[in-house]
Amino acid sequence: MSDESSDFKPSPDTRLALGQLQMVLPEGGLLIDAESLRPYECDGLSAYRRLPLAVALPETVDQVQGVMRICHRLGIPVVARGAGTGLSGGALPLENGILLSLARFNRIVEIDAANRRARVQPGVRNLAISEAVAPLGLYYAPDPSSQIACSIGGNVAENSGGVHCLKYGLTVHNVQQVEMITAEGEQLLLGGGGLDGPGYDLLALVTGSEGLLGVITEVTVKLLPRPAHVSVLLAAFDDIEAAGNAVAGIIAAGIVPAGLEMMDNPSIRAAEDFVHAGYPVDATAILLCELDGSEAEVAAQVEQVSALLQRAGAGEVRTASDTDERQRFWAGRKAAFPAVGRISPDYYCMDGTIPRHRLAEILSRIANLSDEYGLRVANVFHAGDGNLHPLILYDANRPGELERAEQLGARILEASVEVGGSITGEHGVGIEKIDQMCVQFNSDELAQFHAVKAAFDTKGILNPGKAVPTLHRCAELGAMHVHKGELPFPELERF
Amino acid sequence: MSDESSDFKPSPDTRLALGQLQMVLPEGGLLIDAESLRPYECDGLSAYRRLPLAVALPETVDQVQGVMRICHRLGIPVVARGAGTGLSGGALPLENGILLSLARFNRIVEIDAANRRARVQPGVRNLAISEAVAPLGLYYAPDPSSQIACSIGGNVAENSGGVHCLKYGLTVHNVQQVEMITAEGEQLLLGGGGLDGPGYDLLALVTGSEGLLGVITEVTVKLLPRPAHVSVLLAAFDDIEAAGNAVAGIIAAGIVPAGLEMMDNPSIRAAEDFVHAGYPVDATAILLCELDGSEAEVAAQVEQVSALLQRAGAGEVRTASDTDERQRFWAGRKAAFPAVGRISPDYYCMDGTIPRHRLAEILSRIANLSDEYGLRVANVFHAGDGNLHPLILYDANRPGELERAEQLGARILEASVEVGGSITGEHGVGIEKIDQMCVQFNSDELAQFHAVKAAFDTKGILNPGKAVPTLHRCAELGAMHVHKGELPFPELERF
Repeated sequence: MSDESSDFKPSPDTRLALGQLQMVLPEGGLLIDAESLRPYECDGLSAYRRLPLAVALPETVDQVQGVMRICHRLGIPVVARGAGTGLSGGALPLENGILLSLARFNRIVEIDAANRRARVQPGVRNLAISEAVAPLGLYYAPDPSSQIACSIGGNVAENSGGVHCLKYGLTVHNVQQVEMITAEGEQLLLGGGGLDGPGYDLLALVTGSEGLLGVITEVTVKLLPRPAHVSVLLAAFDDIEAAGNAVAGIIAAGIVPAGLEMMDNPSIRAAEDFVHAGYPVDATAILLCELDGSEAEVAAQVEQVSALLQRAGAGEVRTASDTDERQRFWAGRKAAFPAVGRISPDYYCMDGTIPRHRLAEILSRIANLSDEYGLRVANVFHAGDGNLHPLILYDANRPGELERAEQLGARILEASVEVGGSITGEHGVGIEKIDQMCVQFNSDELAQFHAVKAAFDTKGILNPGKAVPTLHRCAELGAMHVHKGELPFPELERF
Repeated sequence: MSDESSDFKPSPDTRLALGQLQMVLPEGGLLIDAESLRPYECDGLSAYRRLPLAVALPETVDQVQGVMRICHRLGIPVVARGAGTGLSGGALPLENGILLSLARFNRIVEIDAANRRARVQPGVRNLAISEAVAPLGLYYAPDPSSQIACSIGGNVAENSGGVHCLKYGLTVHNVQQVEMITAEGEQLLLGGGGLDGPGYDLLALVTGSEGLLGVITEVTVKLLPRPAHVSVLLAAFDDIEAAGNAVAGIIAAGIVPAGLEMMDNPSIRAAEDFVHAGYPVDATAILLCELDGSEAEVAAQVEQVSALLQRAGAGEVRTASDTDERQRFWAGRKAAFPAVGRISPDYYCMDGTIPRHRLAEILSRIANLSDEYGLRVANVFHAGDGNLHPLILYDANRPGELERAEQLGARILEASVEVGGSITGEHGVGIEKIDQMCVQFNSDELAQFHAVKAAFDTKGILNPGKAVPTLHRCAELGAMHVHKGELPFPELERF
């Protein structure tokens, strides 16, 4: 996208459409000048930016329906946006499309403590839910790193996880019901209170569908009681494989930790320099294992896990039992991304999954790829569920370095698929990984995705070009044999 | 269905189709004479019976694809069938259709202990999986009452639960990947190893879709380590509301029992007479609460739950700690259905869900309805997840009594929807509850279901007439104001 596009002059037809939209939106609810559009030009994948035709800021469900009916009739693309913290470009606007912000849907509608659920609008921040129900001893379990900022609607669209999803599940496991507006402006209620509802499970289908099937206007989330006790163990290893085996041993023993995270040496060093968590900076890898439950249960598990870690070859095992120490143990892990940001001008966060027992192998492949591309990689790993976050360090000011970083990232994802994993653990496909979808799925499977999309959105106006590549795109990539490490969306300018 | 249909003579066109099917099936793999078809005329909802045009018994995925391609080309309906233990008529054949039995897909393909999963064919019995992996200390968690007979393919189609689903989830939470043949004969792999895969969650969509979206040909299930310790508590109450409050208290305390079941007095008496479980026959209700985990964890929880039960007003609380006593406690609950079968010539098992806190209210409404219809009702209840199984006692030999039982059942389901519950907890919709779907969903939601169905099955050949009613059917029911308690499928003769 060139600079001129910020001076984009809507055509007379476009102006008619904007006029219609103004009629269904409140005063100040339609932004069209370049300066107002600027904050919406990208999400957390800031390498890709584009200004939309306009930003719609509805305040009621009726207004969302109005926007969708107009856009459906006129064939105008719509990209829904929560807080814009997504990491795969899912909320990147289209130049000829409306960016539909749910920012004004920011009310907690109802807290139902007896049934342990809350009904909230999609723009409510993830952490705000837990804060609101904290006086009742309850919380909302999924905790993506962006939980202070990200919104629950975006969490549903991306099926967000977090460090506790090993025990408490992803968004899909913590949501009971979703109210959604279809591409045609109809209102649907998906899901319900029961464990297994009648009809197709459209709630699960829509969760993680990256804004391609509808616009979420209300979410009923499940609430959990705060665990009575929490302990965190920190174990240092001088061998990655031993750390991997320790993870396998904990899982095999039938223990389900609330969190089980691994960091490699570059991540440990970066984090320690930044927040002084007390990490052993010479360790090849550390494991953080959080255990929660009743006092007796946690005490028994701490003992069992300590023994397992030591048998697996941990050089040092520390247990944080008070809140301060526990928070310090986690502080390093939670600050890993910004910490890496301090040691490199830029970094690129990947998100693949692998079978747990292939960890040592994939880390050694990443080390080789890192050498091959001449770029450092720091690894942070949701070890319990096999979700790897390699952080590729680069300098965007050095010509070609971003491209090399992206090629390296694509190679890592493809290696993940090769060992039986997948191209995304929790960040979604968006525009970032759309070409890797051609590696992950065959044409029959992609055709089935498109058929499902058409069942919700006949004209294809919802977030077009994201998440699911066209068969044509995959065929071209395949024919050109460029899908190993080639850039997606080369036509977009980067910042 | 009249007796003549068992002498159904295929038309010349039909004979051509059967000839084509014979070409893709092995010797003896296509049954067409009435005597061979008889065993397939119904599933567990034996009140409805029909003979199919033919039964196909493929042995390989290629053969399933061949059958689907022929039926798709010729527009012949296909009903897939596992073990035929379903309770809502999902596997009821169509007279002009093929009954596709997966009985010969009975192999456990691979047991992968390191990654705690097993790849099995759909005809493998649920319990056979746990038996096969028992030497490894593992098991497959979902345990529907029919687990000795029901097959894993049917479990996926119905999203089966069981008494342990409160803690361990339904089938959808315990399946990693499904191989499916589409209506057109294409092979799709749904799901994968990761916690959150890329693309739409077609695995969750297909799970519980009652055979309307595809034919399942392989299932990768998750395996869990056997819990180290298990205890069961039995508490007797002389007041239903107190028992309901005890359930709420346990859940509110953050305890997740492996099972939490309630039986009312008629169920207690029937079960006790049958298996002599040692139940207190004068109790208004009993609660069974199973706790599992490490020794320390279980001991702490037993203490906590005992105290909660006593505070809630339990007259008696017993704890079974050895295997014998535990099995005796459960024996009564597990035998509740056949036990009721002993005290009544026939019974009709309903399956609705309700919000837990409305239990006392719904039981009192059921008691009133029981009086109104002059039929006894025994209640068995998955109390932890709000899934109620009223067993309506009737005598099919008394004219009009089956009809009264069905009307009473429909009224109970509608009462469940009224208090915020749903028309099915775990048995599926099938043909049994298809009219209640018109109560549960509005026309936009039903239209969305049909659009999703069409995205998988353009010609509508897979299990037509089940699970999702046509809008026309609902409109007619609504227009005639007969959907409160009226019989579904009055055109079918009952046995």
